[in-house]
Amino acid sequence: MMKSNIRFTEDMQFIGVADSGHDVVMDAPLSVGGKNTGSRPSELLLMAFGGCTGMDVISILRKKKQDVTGFEMNVRGETPENYPKSFTDIHIEYVVKGKNISEEAVERAVELSLEKYCLVGATIGKAAKITHSYKVIQES
Amino acid sequence: MMKSNIRFTEDMQFIGVADSGHDVVMDAPLSVGGKNTGSRPSELLLMAFGGCTGMDVISILRKKKQDVTGFEMNVRGETPENYPKSFTDIHIEYVVKGKNISEEAVERAVELSLEKYCLVGATIGKAAKITHSYKVIQES
Repeated sequence: MMKSNIRFTEDMQFIGVADSGHDVVMDAPLSVGGKNTGSRPSELLLMAFGGCTGMDVISILRKKKQDVTGFEMNVRGETPENYPKSFTDIHIEYVVKGKNISEEAVERAVELSLEKYCLVGATIGKAAKITHSYKVIQES
Repeated sequence: MMKSNIRFTEDMQFIGVADSGHDVVMDAPLSVGGKNTGSRPSELLLMAFGGCTGMDVISILRKKKQDVTGFEMNVRGETPENYPKSFTDIHIEYVVKGKNISEEAVERAVELSLEKYCLVGATIGKAAKITHSYKVIQES
């Protein structure tokens, strides 16, 4: 079981903490009474997805002896106009940079993460259609 | 459309950022090659849920002229033993402290958030069964 505490401070600011002990500040924009001192909760959801699948992918690429020198993901989420809103479509682009990177290894690592290992992806994938793409940048 | 970028740094550390511009550090525990410099992605998911519904609830309680002096949430998430894992059950406890707080106002605010406004809750609620409880602490 995973536990988290989220405490209200002032205005629209909340501070989350969980078992690992790191504070995460969340806040709303000025337009709705916040002070933009931290991320929006919905942004955290997209980041959590990237971090989750990113950890899987970097681990698998290391096991496959890939010489990764840079790695990032771009995650985009779409929501409907009307309430209740949930993410309906999420696209993730994986950008892997390195020397002699095998595209097949990247593709397989992404598949393993999205189809099997990534807890956040498996959770939000029940609500949203998750699509992915990847770009490999070969360094000379 | 909401956008987020998550970049790998080293070991198992990733840094997420989205439209609001705040960096969020994610990391794995030492047992799997991380250095515990930030939250686990799955913890962020639970915090995002608390922050999302918390912002709804505090806004609604303000509109209902409730004199809230303290507010926090405890979120617990359960996952199955086997892959692919997604959260199956999430419980959120709302703890509202204040003067002459109407329990009915708290209950209605929570319902409105969970059934209508909270984007993160609507998203993860397609995967997990979300249950809730609340505690009102009256100050004299």
